Amino acid sequence: MKTTLAIDIGGTQLRAAVFPENEDKPLRQKRLPTYVDGKPSLDRLLQLIHEVTEESETIDAIGIVAPGPINANTGVILAAPNLPEWAGVSISDLCQKEFGAPTFLGNDANLAAIGEWKYGAGRGHHHLIYMTISTGIGSGVISHDQLIVGNNGLASELGHVTLLPDGPMCGCGQRGHLEALASGTGIAKYFAEQLSNGRESILSGKPDAKTISKAAKEGDELALETFNRAGYYIGLAVANYLAIFNPSIVIFGGGVSQAGDLIMNPIRKAMRESVFSEHFLMDLELSYAELGDDVGLYGALALARESLGAIS
Amino acid sequence: MKTTLAIDIGGTQLRAAVFPENEDKPLRQKRLPTYVDGKPSLDRLLQLIHEVTEESETIDAIGIVAPGPINANTGVILAAPNLPEWAGVSISDLCQKEFGAPTFLGNDANLAAIGEWKYGAGRGHHHLIYMTISTGIGSGVISHDQLIVGNNGLASELGHVTLLPDGPMCGCGQRGHLEALASGTGIAKYFAEQLSNGRESILSGKPDAKTISKAAKEGDELALETFNRAGYYIGLAVANYLAIFNPSIVIFGGGVSQAGDLIMNPIRKAMRESVFSEHFLMDLELSYAELGDDVGLYGALALARESLGAIS
Repeated sequence: MKTTLAIDIGGTQLRAAVFPENEDKPLRQKRLPTYVDGKPSLDRLLQLIHEVTEESETIDAIGIVAPGPINANTGVILAAPNLPEWAGVSISDLCQKEFGAPTFLGNDANLAAIGEWKYGAGRGHHHLIYMTISTGIGSGVISHDQLIVGNNGLASELGHVTLLPDGPMCGCGQRGHLEALASGTGIAKYFAEQLSNGRESILSGKPDAKTISKAAKEGDELALETFNRAGYYIGLAVANYLAIFNPSIVIFGGGVSQAGDLIMNPIRKAMRESVFSEHFLMDLELSYAELGDDVGLYGALALARESLGAIS
Repeated sequence: MKTTLAIDIGGTQLRAAVFPENEDKPLRQKRLPTYVDGKPSLDRLLQLIHEVTEESETIDAIGIVAPGPINANTGVILAAPNLPEWAGVSISDLCQKEFGAPTFLGNDANLAAIGEWKYGAGRGHHHLIYMTISTGIGSGVISHDQLIVGNNGLASELGHVTLLPDGPMCGCGQRGHLEALASGTGIAKYFAEQLSNGRESILSGKPDAKTISKAAKEGDELALETFNRAGYYIGLAVANYLAIFNPSIVIFGGGVSQAGDLIMNPIRKAMRESVFSEHFLMDLELSYAELGDDVGLYGALALARESLGAIS
């Protein structure tokens, strides 16, 4: 039997799933912890693949989702603060040698985009933007049925664009990035600053974005303002991305999106008010991501199948 | 003989050129005024094509560059303040019926991008950003060897993204767009405002961007500051576009770019200081456009040949 292998290198678990050709349900799955005795291991990745596969099956391709930044063209993880042993290694080459199957690597946000495109909320679309708004803001873009990865495989960093030149510092060291303004971290930081400026709220200390969203739903003014502000900047960014990509769908994943209308209403409002022209709203869908915890595996599957299609 | 027809619908002239198959030099060219007695005319466009072509030749495709916005997928000009008779008409269908050749339409900035890619400064690149900085800021993007036009053919409006939410009003009615901050119009407007605020300069009144660039080269402080400011915002925008597209070349066209280092130095500085990560500067070229006044014809030629290749 011909199979495609999907691997998700996550912060706590390595997951592997075997998909029969032309089928979207896995035949078999395995998990191993990413860290043992505090150390990640490339050997354990290979072990996992050996354990999940069977001799009677032929692997036609392997797709791997890994934490970025990754050179998607070479399969090399460029920097991995939490996986130092893996940085600079071509995991694609490693797997290709060990298992004799073409291996394709992508970062988690890019592969979430391709996963949602092929198996989730974006099915049938040709121009899609995916944004995951959680601790950070990750993203991926499908344009003309093609995942945009660019010259060195690093493109589609929609969270790391300057939206407010004198805005708050981003984790990356630049100012006023969308991620600094509107990620979970950005939301918590703004809220804590307002509290320490003496603003009133039912909350105190340094609550996280989820706690702030609950307070907003209970009517806390500062919490509401905080989500309106984050939604405004996301909506402004989305308006920019409409002018840049003219997509037919924008898909929102990540914990902050799960606040629902609390964040989506200000996003929609700012997007409509800021869009370059009404034409960009024609046939446009805004949607929530559908694949949940399996988005990594489905992204890896989609990458493997798409890449194999492109080279065969 | 098989030929490809390139048409440039300009503000003052309609130009047409006939290119033999596989050749990049035109066999024949014709021009007609766009307006006669103050009126543009679709009939004159057809007349021009009849005049430039010969019975013995077979037209394999027609490429047309027109002022935007255009739905690149349908060949319909969506709005044309200066060509009201042409709005809402599918010029592609019209030409296809009259000449029996598949006809492809694109806006001037998108086609300048594809022209520079195939015949100008961008030859050999697969990921290219073109920006023309003149009265306005137009742009086009090639990503993975594909002109990005999006779902309704409207994409790649890199001049109409918000870069400074409370910034100056753009001609399109939105605030803080790159075009409002750094186009020739934006430069002239900022300079005039500073003068009327009592700032000193060797210039007075409402000089245009070209006059201001000359004053800057003569050492006028306010003129220098004005170009540094425009270059800063362009560089900031370019840094954003590197994170979004990870191109290997950014090409600058338009009158403001012809100010040379006066504008390019602050662009380079802001781009380097604002870029998300050093990886995006790897193998990156910044270049001036090469095709000059012929960019429209070469863009139309490239569009026709690329589109024909894609459908055949």
